[in-house]
Amino acid sequence: MTDNPSFVLRSIEDVAYEQRPIPEISDREVLVEVKKTGICGSDVHYYVHGRIGDFVVKDPMVLGHESSGIISKVGAKVKHVKVGDRVAIEPGSTCRVCDMCKSGRYNLCPDIVFAATPPYDGTLGRYYRVLGDLTYSLPENLTLEDGAMMEPLSVGVHSVATLGGFRHNQSVVVFGCGPVGLLCMAVAKALGAKRIIAVDIVPSRLEFAKSYAGSETYLPPAPEKDESKIDYSLRNAENMKKTLGIEDRGPNSINLVVEASGAEVSIQTGLYVVGTGGSYVQVGMGSPNVNINLTMVMTKELSFKGSFRYGPGDYPLAIALVAQGKIDLKPLVTHRYAFDEAIVAFKATRQGKSDDGKGVIKAIISGPDVSVTDA
Amino acid sequence: MTDNPSFVLRSIEDVAYEQRPIPEISDREVLVEVKKTGICGSDVHYYVHGRIGDFVVKDPMVLGHESSGIISKVGAKVKHVKVGDRVAIEPGSTCRVCDMCKSGRYNLCPDIVFAATPPYDGTLGRYYRVLGDLTYSLPENLTLEDGAMMEPLSVGVHSVATLGGFRHNQSVVVFGCGPVGLLCMAVAKALGAKRIIAVDIVPSRLEFAKSYAGSETYLPPAPEKDESKIDYSLRNAENMKKTLGIEDRGPNSINLVVEASGAEVSIQTGLYVVGTGGSYVQVGMGSPNVNINLTMVMTKELSFKGSFRYGPGDYPLAIALVAQGKIDLKPLVTHRYAFDEAIVAFKATRQGKSDDGKGVIKAIISGPDVSVTDA
Amino acid sequence: MTDNPSFVLRSIEDVAYEQRPIPEISDREVLVEVKKTGICGSDVHYYVHGRIGDFVVKDPMVLGHESSGIISKVGAKVKHVKVGDRVAIEPGSTCRVCDMCKSGRYNLCPDIVFAATPPYDGTLGRYYRVLGDLTYSLPENLTLEDGAMMEPLSVGVHSVATLGGFRHNQSVVVFGCGPVGLLCMAVAKALGAKRIIAVDIVPSRLEFAKSYAGSETYLPPAPEKDESKIDYSLRNAENMKKTLGIEDRGPNSINLVVEASGAEVSIQTGLYVVGTGGSYVQVGMGSPNVNINLTMVMTKELSFKGSFRYGPGDYPLAIALVAQGKIDLKPLVTHRYAFDEAIVAFKATRQGKSDDGKGVIKAIISGPDVSVTDA
Amino acid sequence: MTDNPSFVLRSIEDVAYEQRPIPEISDREVLVEVKKTGICGSDVHYYVHGRIGDFVVKDPMVLGHESSGIISKVGAKVKHVKVGDRVAIEPGSTCRVCDMCKSGRYNLCPDIVFAATPPYDGTLGRYYRVLGDLTYSLPENLTLEDGAMMEPLSVGVHSVATLGGFRHNQSVVVFGCGPVGLLCMAVAKALGAKRIIAVDIVPSRLEFAKSYAGSETYLPPAPEKDESKIDYSLRNAENMKKTLGIEDRGPNSINLVVEASGAEVSIQTGLYVVGTGGSYVQVGMGSPNVNINLTMVMTKELSFKGSFRYGPGDYPLAIALVAQGKIDLKPLVTHRYAFDEAIVAFKATRQGKSDDGKGVIKAIISGPDVSVTDA
Repeated sequence: MTDNPSFVLRSIEDVAYEQRPIPEISDREVLVEVKKTGICGSDVHYYVHGRIGDFVVKDPMVLGHESSGIISKVGAKVKHVKVGDRVAIEPGSTCRVCDMCKSGRYNLCPDIVFAATPPYDGTLGRYYRVLGDLTYSLPENLTLEDGAMMEPLSVGVHSVATLGGFRHNQSVVVFGCGPVGLLCMAVAKALGAKRIIAVDIVPSRLEFAKSYAGSETYLPPAPEKDESKIDYSLRNAENMKKTLGIEDRGPNSINLVVEASGAEVSIQTGLYVVGTGGSYVQVGMGSPNVNINLTMVMTKELSFKGSFRYGPGDYPLAIALVAQGKIDLKPLVTHRYAFDEAIVAFKATRQGKSDDGKGVIKAIISGPDVSVTDA
Repeated sequence: MTDNPSFVLRSIEDVAYEQRPIPEISDREVLVEVKKTGICGSDVHYYVHGRIGDFVVKDPMVLGHESSGIISKVGAKVKHVKVGDRVAIEPGSTCRVCDMCKSGRYNLCPDIVFAATPPYDGTLGRYYRVLGDLTYSLPENLTLEDGAMMEPLSVGVHSVATLGGFRHNQSVVVFGCGPVGLLCMAVAKALGAKRIIAVDIVPSRLEFAKSYAGSETYLPPAPEKDESKIDYSLRNAENMKKTLGIEDRGPNSINLVVEASGAEVSIQTGLYVVGTGGSYVQVGMGSPNVNINLTMVMTKELSFKGSFRYGPGDYPLAIALVAQGKIDLKPLVTHRYAFDEAIVAFKATRQGKSDDGKGVIKAIISGPDVSVTDA
Repeated sequence: MTDNPSFVLRSIEDVAYEQRPIPEISDREVLVEVKKTGICGSDVHYYVHGRIGDFVVKDPMVLGHESSGIISKVGAKVKHVKVGDRVAIEPGSTCRVCDMCKSGRYNLCPDIVFAATPPYDGTLGRYYRVLGDLTYSLPENLTLEDGAMMEPLSVGVHSVATLGGFRHNQSVVVFGCGPVGLLCMAVAKALGAKRIIAVDIVPSRLEFAKSYAGSETYLPPAPEKDESKIDYSLRNAENMKKTLGIEDRGPNSINLVVEASGAEVSIQTGLYVVGTGGSYVQVGMGSPNVNINLTMVMTKELSFKGSFRYGPGDYPLAIALVAQGKIDLKPLVTHRYAFDEAIVAFKATRQGKSDDGKGVIKAIISGPDVSVTDA
Repeated sequence: MTDNPSFVLRSIEDVAYEQRPIPEISDREVLVEVKKTGICGSDVHYYVHGRIGDFVVKDPMVLGHESSGIISKVGAKVKHVKVGDRVAIEPGSTCRVCDMCKSGRYNLCPDIVFAATPPYDGTLGRYYRVLGDLTYSLPENLTLEDGAMMEPLSVGVHSVATLGGFRHNQSVVVFGCGPVGLLCMAVAKALGAKRIIAVDIVPSRLEFAKSYAGSETYLPPAPEKDESKIDYSLRNAENMKKTLGIEDRGPNSINLVVEASGAEVSIQTGLYVVGTGGSYVQVGMGSPNVNINLTMVMTKELSFKGSFRYGPGDYPLAIALVAQGKIDLKPLVTHRYAFDEAIVAFKATRQGKSDDGKGVIKAIISGPDVSVTDA
């Protein structure tokens, strides 16, 4: 077998299937036959805009970075997996020698090679070569689709557990009920949350959050005419606290806010809602500049953290939470596509719904040789 | 001796000396004969505006909260000080029973009684009653003026050491060269800083920072006409990094930014300048709402913390750093006033200079019975 | 109602019911009508030996410290409970002014007044006076017996969660299947343990651990004749690792050992079994001096911690874990006694079984006015 | 230049100079021309016993692991050093892919290749090949001898700063005034210690500690006849506390004990002396099994940690402390030898003094081409 068909972004909204060479692997690498790949907002963003911030697609780039597959070849020094193993792929290869890599924050490595972040190719081909330690065996009760979902779930684990320091019997508010927000709620639930409060401006998304993660829900009111964002956010927060019985301190306070929408008013509201001495983690990308109430940050002595991808221990915990039955990923996979329908998957994700009107939470594309229904 | 003359704020810009009863003390309290009191920006703010945020001066209130004195009476259960001891006074009495008090974050106690924060009287009288454990004996080599300076120095200790987690051989940028900024630099120096970079828009303040804390200095350029604040801040940060050889990672990166000016462009610049994985602590009060670059917070995975007063261990470390000779507070005390000149001290602090044109860093008012020069 | 019958230890094995005055309460205190009190090994130890270490019963002392009850009077400054509330009582009142109290480690306060630790009276009377913040309202789905069990459960929370830092998907070995060991397993399970391995030398206790906390079990072999303890422990540990598939590192390693038996061979075995970089927490009191393998502590860079009572947040988390249904305390309460049968309860606990031969895990004594069956 | 003379241990007390091939380097490696190598107790132990625990010298092994040198060749991917740079060498190469390596505890990597730990060759040759990121450029004011001392100094940094969490104004007791003990004191002093108390049974070593690190000193009394070790240790500790004014809590308590002697009575005494809630770090290797007072560990809720080599950030901090003038390493280098006198250096270190009777703290051997006096 010599072919390696790959789904390539050539330029804005110009994608095609190209044959790429099957990579050779070194002693520490493995070759994975990619079986399932989830479509992420960032993939779509490159497809539509050709760039994210300073990362610009200049040369044709294979898309995709949320993948699972089957080990096809194993380097001599890789011991924890063997040919035929079903694995989740962590898509960021780091240098292993910088201060960040050596001190346990490898997600901040300046030389990270991240799948489908220009100029590096992604995983949407038949084969993907990766350092062996970035592949994680899937327990028997996890499907290959579950494996593809480990990437966004690890974002949730990193935000809620690792950075948020979320502990049993704490309360969290999650702004934004897209895939990452929902996964943050799922992690909080799995870790023993006392209260999980989901916030979104789309009632159907709140309904889903409620059924999926057992969350309480809050639908923000519409802004008044001529009301500034910050005034609106304060009003929104006061209303939210009153409606839901949220206090600034004690057992009815919010220990953690996870902001997964990127919307300025959500960010502002989150800082008003989080309890004194609490934590706020920003995981949703949105407007680069936002107006925040600094007095709140100071008088409540908040800890406000940015969350970037995932680091040591996040993939293993993500896998364990699903294997233990504490998180069910299946309800999130709303759309499935064959490899040759990849463009349809991108379009549906971009629109937020497929042509039949069904809302997309997560669309998954099968590998070249895999049936759509063979999860 | 039955009189207790006190310096009272009656309403905006209306102050007077009033006789107040000498307080009775309980078993756990002490009575301190107040000897030295520093004037803080917040004292002046109440004097000028009658309020700070939600704290409004409704009834006449004794001013002052940065004080030292001599123990005059000791409650039966107070063992660590005796009559005649020279002490620094920590001005916030907390409830001791709430979650915050019991878990080591007593500065966040909702029932804190803080000197000269309405409706609670301050320390600018002959006597001040306080819980015994809030008085700290001054080592022999500390003066009563040093003792009065423990309050703002503890703010620096809390920001740099406790919240900033500053460690030996790290680099810090401090925005704002007022008393708190200078004390933050002094703490960083005492803790073994590799680099201390002072930023201010007044060259003479930078000169002082350099001579006082051995800081490197950076004078921001003027904004261009029509340049937005955030654009200016990015340009400012790039210039600062280039001029001072600051990098995003590694030994030339900034581990900690302490923002002690409250100016929006400083806050913005600070977030651009701090290194990947670094910490940012906000201690300067300024505009309640500020525009920040959220992308920086996320991609550098920053920890952004608000700093509020001081907590367990901050006063003892402040005293120790001075006692060990690692911090010299004397250069900061630029103005000294007798008790009956308190109004002059307030006016000078408000103006930033005394009538002879000398710039005020810290003005200290002696107690009713103490000579100005008897430090 | 003026009487306050109390169960008093006069001297070794000399107990009696005495009338004690009903305590007056201060503004910050409450008076609790005690309803349920568990018997702890330390109560029995005082009964049998009249002392524990340096704590000697010199004057008659009311026994008991694991109690719940109903609020009978409330001090003026106590706001979180009201007359009639069902509460668990935290039995250690601390000074609130020492470094330990103020920095979040109040269990180490030198001036702690602990119920039924000489010279302080315990809770086995009709009334107990205590600082209001040491009473915790019981959620509706908790019984008063559950409330009495909060004391030993908090010991488990402190050892496993607070000191052990136990996190989801970690593995723990607990030595000793007495009440505290079982509660440590229950906490580990509630916090999402991957593996819980119970060790005891009594098969029936292992059986109980398995049924109660879903633990795997390990029954140590008998020592060889003339085998030293440390040699035996190494052999025991090797056997244990082989039998249970325990490795020194990676997903099959032990993150935490909790030693709740106090037996020297268990301590030794625990240090051999815990994984590289792991934690070991000692909660079981036993022989004061033990022989340990220091090389293990060094080459595995272990963290070995002693656990003493409980601190901030432990009681609330204990209550929450039961309220959420993650811990069931009922199977542990094997024996129930009326107040006037207290001596029978002590004797059964001392023997480890009641006269009918039934093994005691926890015996609970009702208050003077409560029916035994009214949990 | 093709020769690479090396100092090889063939079997117990059988050493010789052998020619070894000059290593080829990969892209990520550098070749260092070794200039200065300190002799460590472990080198001598292999020389005398042929083994340390499970590490047995089966094949001839080049000795030495405390080295500095000059970069001779640089792999293509190594950017931070260039040919001719003076560097300190960190002697442990780790796998970079295991959990320990990725989570910031690389010293616990199971696949570590450590210089002069069988079966891996050490640094006592003309050339040593090592991963580039394990070489640290020496600032101008550090000599190559200083560079060789970075290895034991990093042990001190790891024990005192990283594991001990030692902070400014804390008090430490160090047991054992050998090189590692002295360096632990030096680190504590550089980090702003309040009190440093040195303990040793040799008065001249205490004298040196006092002059070198400004330590207070304590000379333990001789044990009584028939006194058990643990009884002696308790008496010793009580005497030490009385003599030095050490208390269990508060400003006169000991925050950290570092045990660098490995002697059982020192370990026991250390646990009696450390303050409530304090930390104890074991860095001295001695008797594998020791008898400790467990009651102390529990009632004081101590944290007892083993220290093993050094990890992320330890070498950089060690270098910085010397470069800033806070640690002076020169007084510790008591003996210097040419490469062809290596055997003499080993013999002197073994005896603890050279033939002229001068006590050895640290003996340094120059590289094949370096004059002894050219530090």
